[in-house]
This record gives sequence, structure tokens and C-alpha cells, in this order.
Amino acid sequence: MNAPTIEHDPFSRAVARSAELEVQIAATPERFRVLTGDRPTGPLHLGHYFGTLANRVRLQQAGVDVLVLVADYQVITDRDVAEDLQRAVTGLVLDQLAAGLDPERTTIFCHSAVPALNQLLLPFLSLVSVPELQRNPTVKAETEATGDRAMSGLMLTYPVHQAADILFCGANLVPVGRDQLPHLELTRTIARRFTQRYGPVFGEPDALLGDAPLLLGTDGTKMAKSRGNAIALRADEDTTARLVRRAVTDTERTITYEPGRRPEVASLVLLGALCRGQSPEAFADEIGAGGAAALKAALTEAVNERLRPMRARRAELAADPGLVRDVLRRGDERANGLAEATLGRVRDAMGMRY
Amino acid sequence: MNAPTIEHDPFSRAVARSAELEVQIAATPERFRVLTGDRPTGPLHLGHYFGTLANRVRLQQAGVDVLVLVADYQVITDRDVAEDLQRAVTGLVLDQLAAGLDPERTTIFCHSAVPALNQLLLPFLSLVSVPELQRNPTVKAETEATGDRAMSGLMLTYPVHQAADILFCGANLVPVGRDQLPHLELTRTIARRFTQRYGPVFGEPDALLGDAPLLLGTDGTKMAKSRGNAIALRADEDTTARLVRRAVTDTERTITYEPGRRPEVASLVLLGALCRGQSPEAFADEIGAGGAAALKAALTEAVNERLRPMRARRAELAADPGLVRDVLRRGDERANGLAEATLGRVRDAMGMRY
Repeated sequence: MNAPTIEHDPFSRAVARSAELEVQIAATPERFRVLTGDRPTGPLHLGHYFGTLANRVRLQQAGVDVLVLVADYQVITDRDVAEDLQRAVTGLVLDQLAAGLDPERTTIFCHSAVPALNQLLLPFLSLVSVPELQRNPTVKAETEATGDRAMSGLMLTYPVHQAADILFCGANLVPVGRDQLPHLELTRTIARRFTQRYGPVFGEPDALLGDAPLLLGTDGTKMAKSRGNAIALRADEDTTARLVRRAVTDTERTITYEPGRRPEVASLVLLGALCRGQSPEAFADEIGAGGAAALKAALTEAVNERLRPMRARRAELAADPGLVRDVLRRGDERANGLAEATLGRVRDAMGMRY
Repeated sequence: MNAPTIEHDPFSRAVARSAELEVQIAATPERFRVLTGDRPTGPLHLGHYFGTLANRVRLQQAGVDVLVLVADYQVITDRDVAEDLQRAVTGLVLDQLAAGLDPERTTIFCHSAVPALNQLLLPFLSLVSVPELQRNPTVKAETEATGDRAMSGLMLTYPVHQAADILFCGANLVPVGRDQLPHLELTRTIARRFTQRYGPVFGEPDALLGDAPLLLGTDGTKMAKSRGNAIALRADEDTTARLVRRAVTDTERTITYEPGRRPEVASLVLLGALCRGQSPEAFADEIGAGGAAALKAALTEAVNERLRPMRARRAELAADPGLVRDVLRRGDERANGLAEATLGRVRDAMGMRY
């Protein structure tokens, strides 16, 4: 008996498939449509930038049709956000534009503005069982997080909303991290079951695994806006310097890149290297025996230098009060067109023409 | 300590409230909007007619704004129906029109044709917990009926779809039977929670309890199309006669109206009386000692006489192939207008204007 080959492991399979897809994207970008999105919960930070935003800009520049969903319905259970959703959405779109998403090429739209997309929930909900919904990793995590508090119907059905978000526009590529592979699997399942039952309307989208680096927050824990350990793209240079100054390091003088042995220092090194576009080893070598203070000074400079043009561009964009409204109006219009065409095909397939 | 007064029992309270409402309807019908509907699962029968259809026609004639939903998304888990949904919907609308619903005054529309109505699912799902959904009587019954088979996400969220169906159009009256009171309660809860959280967009609709008679099928069990024991409104006179001939009776010669002691005979007597617009006692007296054969002959005649104009009208209507399409087009258009206006108010209340 042979040991299982690498292809039998879903993650390795996704890695191999993503490599193939990158070759195809380079050759025929016009064959690809990407759906990705953000919850409008607050300023985008460097974790978002190197995790997903830079990759979206790369795909856009390559000539792929990119759609970016502002998942406003996904934050309505969060009272603090819901109370100033308009500000959160406007800020998010400005962050995206400043980072390089071009509304002439990329479609930015809001979940709440596309009724025909949301109607897909109904047929899709008929294709999944309640136990399947409960097995979804996000839903399971939420069950654990909320403890005995009852989960909302919106949270339980979240994987189905996600399927509607992806399938409504015929996206064939969804950039994901390793932990999101199971999410996409339910979308693929829904597409397949719809085809089996009603005929071919939806293809099964591929996961495009990113090589997103693991960046820790400045306190050495998971980077999250709510922990105050993330550098917002829109922060000013002094705020950036202050956050970096407070970063957790260690007492060794010589700066090295050893993620296993020195996770906090390694994460700062990696962030500096990403900002400079060099290898973490090279960035560490430059600092050498300068210790934590030199590391922090170099990192602050690297971050501020990298973000300077984005921040300047954001200030320019923010000066035009009608800009975000226009960008969303155009994005919503395109999304509605795609959604209505898809819903039309769904009605035909389901025999809902009277 | 006093015994609980009648007002403390939800059913008695609903009865008293419905009596008040009937007085108000008679005085100011223009203040009322009714939402009611049918699943397009097959021909409407006499149980539907005396249970709900005649009441809708009564409300329409009184000057109430009546909306009738064709719940096409509620049958998509039923493969046999889904395969010929178009025929089921067309047949249903013809039955409704033949029974007296007037498309000039009453809005008949399809669930699948109103995306903005369906979008209300998202905010509404955020306002109810999964345990609340699971406690709904329809959902509980389905859990029991399907046994170990997994329930679909569509079935679990059914009470929320119902809330969207009622609230999208600002209906303030929902005709229900006693067993449906808990359904409406969840709709009222969702309206109340939305108001508490986002402000007043939705009123709490009232239940209008009907005095729908308990009609058994011709075999003495619950009347249901699937049991072949129901007389379809559209059946021809011979089919009607055949069904009545096969009806279960008893061996007592003298026909009486005793629902407790002689349920099968009493149900046939009641049906005949309803068709003739007389009391069941009077109908039984006319037959007297004629026995089951005379009862069946009288019943067949009473049913056929009552349905004759409806059947003739249905044949006329069915001869116009574009009629149902036109009726639904107009109904869908009005429903979409109402739904879009409501969704606009929901967006304002939720701060989803960017």
C-alpha cells in the first residue's frame, strides 16, 4: 500500500489548483471573474492590505473582472456599527480606492442594494439542510463564541448568503485563505445541487488560495481592529509611530527573522519587509545589532513610506463628498444588472414563468 | 383568587378582537389591507372555498384592499409540483378568479416575482433566534413528519418568509384559522423588534379569525387533495357525483346533524348546507328518513348547483390564454411597487443609504 499522495489532501489540492489558475489568469485574464468583499466594521489595516487588498489590486491590474462586495447586512447584528453604518461604508470604500481599486475597472457594491441577489437565498436555502448549516466553521465558531446565547437566523444561514454573493454574478474565482476553504465548499455544493435539480445555471467557482503572510498585531496577538493592535491604512504618521513604539518585542539585541522562536519580532520584521518589498531576512540584516529600538524606527519608516501615497490619495478622494456615492451607484447598478439576469435564468430553470 | 377571565386566553382574545375588527371593517373598509395566500400545489377544493376563498371574496366586496400571494417558493421542495409549476400556478389563479376574486380590485402576485419582498428576509432573520424558529408549529410539525431526514434551511426559516410576505405590503389584517395564531405571533414579534431597534416602519398586523367550518373529506378523514377525498372546484358534475357516491356514511336511515356522534354524515350535511346557504339542521330535515342515498343525491345537487356558475366562469376565463399572465403581471407590478417602497423605508431606518 502506498502512502496517500499529496493530491488527496484538500489543502494541497487547492494549492496545486491555485498555481494552475495563476498561470491561466496570466494567459487569459478576461476569462476570470472574482468575487471578494469586506464587512464594513471599521478602517482597513495592514493585515487587510497584505492579506487581501493588495491581491485584489494585482488581479485588477492583470485584467480580471473583480467585484468587491460591501457586506452591510453582515454587520447589522453589531449595534455599534449599525448606528453609523453610513460612515463605516464610506470609510471602507475610500480605503479600497486609496489602496488602488479602480472603480472604472472594479465593481464595488453593497449587499443591501441588490434585491435580486438576496432573492437567491430562497432557492438556495431549499438545497441545504439545517445540519449542513450548523457544520459550517463560521457558524460553529459563532456557536462557541456566543455560548448559551441564542444564535440569530441570519448567522445560521450565513453560508447560504455567501453562496448567493458568489453565484449571483457568475464569479469563477474566490480568493480565500486556508481556513475559508470549507466555506467555498458549501457554495460549490449549492451550485452542483441546483444543476442536478433544475439544470445548469451556476458553475462551481474555484478557490484562489493566497499566500497571505501571517501578520500579528503590534502586541504579538492576532491582528484585529478591536484589539487596538493594528495599523490602519488611513492612520497618520504619528499614530503609526506610536503604535509601533508600543509593539511587543524581546530583549535580544540582534534582530533576526525566526517566526518559530521569536514570533513577535519576526512579525514586525515581516511587516517591514512587506512594506519595502524585500525578504524578511534582508530587512532583519539591515538592522543587525540595532535592537528593538532600531527595528521599530525602521519599521515605522517602512510603513509610513509604503502608505504615504495611499494616504495622500485617500485625502484627495475624501475631499470629494459625492465620490463614494457615485462609485457605489455605478457598482450597485452593475451588480443589479448581473443579479437580475441570473435571477431570470433561475426562474427559467425552475419553471417560474407564468 | 379569581378564575382567569376569558380575556386571558389567547384564542378567546383573538375571537373578541376579530369581532371588533369586523365592525371596523364594515364601517371603514378602506382602512384595511389583507394579506393572504395559497401554495400552488393543485386544484382548490370545497375546503379551500368555504375555509378561505369565500371570505376573501367577502372582504373584497366589502371594499378591503386584498392581496393574494401565490407562494411558489414554498413548493419547490415538492418535486412533483416543481416540475409543472407553471400549470399549477395558472390553475390556481383561474380557480381564484372563478371563485370571485376580481383582479381590478384584488392583487394576485407571485412570491418569486418580488425581489424586494424577499430581501426583507435578511433584516428579519437577524431579529429572530434559531430556537424561536424551531418552536414554530409548522416547523415542529415538519420535524416530526420528516423524522430523521434533515430539514431544509428553507423550511426552518419559513416563519420569517411569512413575516416578510405580510409586512412588505403593510397588511394590517391576516385571516387565519385557530391553529395559525402562533404563526402570526412571530410576524408581530419581528415587527415589534424592528421598531425597537431601528424605528417605526412596520405595524403589528391583527389576526382575523374566520368561522371556517370543519369539513371532512368524503372518506371521513381530513380533507386533502392528496387523499382524493376533496371535491375540486373545477371538477365536472360527473366527477363530483362519483366522489360523493363513494363518501363514507353510516347505516342509520334518518339523516341528522350530529357532529359528535355521526361525524361523517354531519360533515356531508354541513357541506350541503353551506352550498345551499342554509343551516345544517334544515338541510338534514329535508332529507329526513331518505337515508345515505338521498343525502348523497341532495349533496351532489347542492354542490353542483353552487359550483355551476364558478365552473362556467372558469371555462370562459381559461379560454383566454393570456389572461392569467396579465393578471399576474399587474399583481406583480403592484406588489413590487409596495415592496420597493417598504425596502426604501427599511434602508432609511437601518442607515443603509450611502
